[in-house]
Amino acid sequence: MSGLDPRLVRLGPGAEFDLIRRFVSGEHPLPPEVLVGPGDDAAVLEGGWVLTVDVSVEDVHFRRAWLSDHEIGYRAAAGALSDLAAMAAKPVGLLVSLAAPRGGRVDVEAVHAGVREMGESVGASVIGGDLSRSPGPLMIDVAAIGRTERPLLRGGAEPDDEVWVTGSLGASAAAVHSWESGGAPSSELREAFARPRPRIAEARALAEAKVARAMIDVSDGIAGDAGHVAAASGVRITLEAAAVPVAPAAVAALGAERAFELALHGGEDYELCFVARPGAVDAAAFERDHGVPLTRVGWVSAGEGVWIHDWEGETHPVVRGGFDHWRRE
Amino acid sequence: MSGLDPRLVRLGPGAEFDLIRRFVSGEHPLPPEVLVGPGDDAAVLEGGWVLTVDVSVEDVHFRRAWLSDHEIGYRAAAGALSDLAAMAAKPVGLLVSLAAPRGGRVDVEAVHAGVREMGESVGASVIGGDLSRSPGPLMIDVAAIGRTERPLLRGGAEPDDEVWVTGSLGASAAAVHSWESGGAPSSELREAFARPRPRIAEARALAEAKVARAMIDVSDGIAGDAGHVAAASGVRITLEAAAVPVAPAAVAALGAERAFELALHGGEDYELCFVARPGAVDAAAFERDHGVPLTRVGWVSAGEGVWIHDWEGETHPVVRGGFDHWRRE
Repeated sequence: MSGLDPRLVRLGPGAEFDLIRRFVSGEHPLPPEVLVGPGDDAAVLEGGWVLTVDVSVEDVHFRRAWLSDHEIGYRAAAGALSDLAAMAAKPVGLLVSLAAPRGGRVDVEAVHAGVREMGESVGASVIGGDLSRSPGPLMIDVAAIGRTERPLLRGGAEPDDEVWVTGSLGASAAAVHSWESGGAPSSELREAFARPRPRIAEARALAEAKVARAMIDVSDGIAGDAGHVAAASGVRITLEAAAVPVAPAAVAALGAERAFELALHGGEDYELCFVARPGAVDAAAFERDHGVPLTRVGWVSAGEGVWIHDWEGETHPVVRGGFDHWRRE
Repeated sequence: MSGLDPRLVRLGPGAEFDLIRRFVSGEHPLPPEVLVGPGDDAAVLEGGWVLTVDVSVEDVHFRRAWLSDHEIGYRAAAGALSDLAAMAAKPVGLLVSLAAPRGGRVDVEAVHAGVREMGESVGASVIGGDLSRSPGPLMIDVAAIGRTERPLLRGGAEPDDEVWVTGSLGASAAAVHSWESGGAPSSELREAFARPRPRIAEARALAEAKVARAMIDVSDGIAGDAGHVAAASGVRITLEAAAVPVAPAAVAALGAERAFELALHGGEDYELCFVARPGAVDAAAFERDHGVPLTRVGWVSAGEGVWIHDWEGETHPVVRGGFDHWRRE
């Protein structure tokens, strides 16, 4: 928005994004019914329809030892629905493609029931799908369609805006870290990974109140996702290290330093990160209405990229710490 | 249509369909924006939007030795777009989820280029997607969205209607048979498998002329797909064995009997099967306009299921022959 052609969307840095960037290069014009093409959280079509897909692959996004089949479906649907939240769309329907190993190793009805539970919790029905066997891992791809009169894109941030985030960060990645280290996560960490809640009502409220000017869901860590907002808006975002709402359960499990690293780079929190004009956000009222805290984590200025204002008062470009999230390429 | 609640859709027999039937059971009401839910070729939403997904898995739907990476993408997109054709929808956009093995074994850009070529040939752009690594096979799931003012459902067949099919049947399955027998298919058979053409323009013309009353794409063999029309419409369909347009290249490769079996049960022809009032179809004009033959293959009567009127003049329920298509469960 904000003067930008909403069909021209810029992505933050990263190898996966370089690849996506090439797929969506401007050589390929969009049909007139497409208002927002690839590169934002979801595509937007005439009539305010919002459409996204999210794929989950066994041993990449989850291990079957960690989750029930029901939770695998629930979590996969939450990932797609979180993209609708990021656009401030009301969920309508889900289409579920499942490739499942033969021989009863996976209970596909339980996976579907999990998808259905997640969808129905936010008003979306399963309206289609496809089913195949898989000669390898379980794979589930969820297409989510929703609707909005006011899509919130990534490109609306301007200098002096504040950067906000819902809830807390790092718990889902801390659960993965516990499992991958041979332990078991606390029930709170496990819940964050297994049953994430896409912030649909929260996003709708932020859009309806015209508070949020740009928004993204935190699926790859707030550093990377804020980077997408910065790139799409043509601005710099500076995160205040001391303000990042690291999940207390992640700190308890891993210590402050590693938990902070996971909050920045861990992924799959499915919280919302948005920008607003200074003073526009009433965090206390939001928490009262939704039971979810809002934290101001940074600010927007002229420039580019994501910077961090650290505990020593130094400001520098954010760099990935030594902790390498297991599912990265 | 035809007095039926279009949201109540019945599926023909088969194990996969039993499973899908359970997923879409009537316990789960649809949001008001959903005009047609699961069980037809695609879902239909308010505003005439039509949405479907189609998943292709390496060593289930194709082998990498048979196809280039470009063809894998092209063919996967054709499968999803054929579902839009079956609804007589104009394609608008594709979303592509790809799970690809690491290490450069698969050229994901080539797969995407194939998707794009297929989509653009019928007016659809790539408007989104997701990308993951796969610890096993290459998997590609294509969501296709299109639009129509007149969706053609499976439920509109009535007694005395004629059953028609575009093009010829069995060539794609004959290519698979050749490969699986250790040979190589003729270039014509290979082309049918590697570069199927969804019948978009043909379907749009049949809908606009109000000729077709119910339609499906032939993706699982005409016997099974006619069975879905019969079940959704609450009628019996009888196929005339001598009229089934078996692909000459399939007969040349495998003999008449096996080629006929593949035409009935082979799958992935991506032709259209539709019903029309007696005398409503002008096959000569259709072939002149589209360069594709139309063949009357049967008729509709009161009853249920798919029957076959064989070369001996006997009529009996269609049963699967001894030839077992390799990708079946």
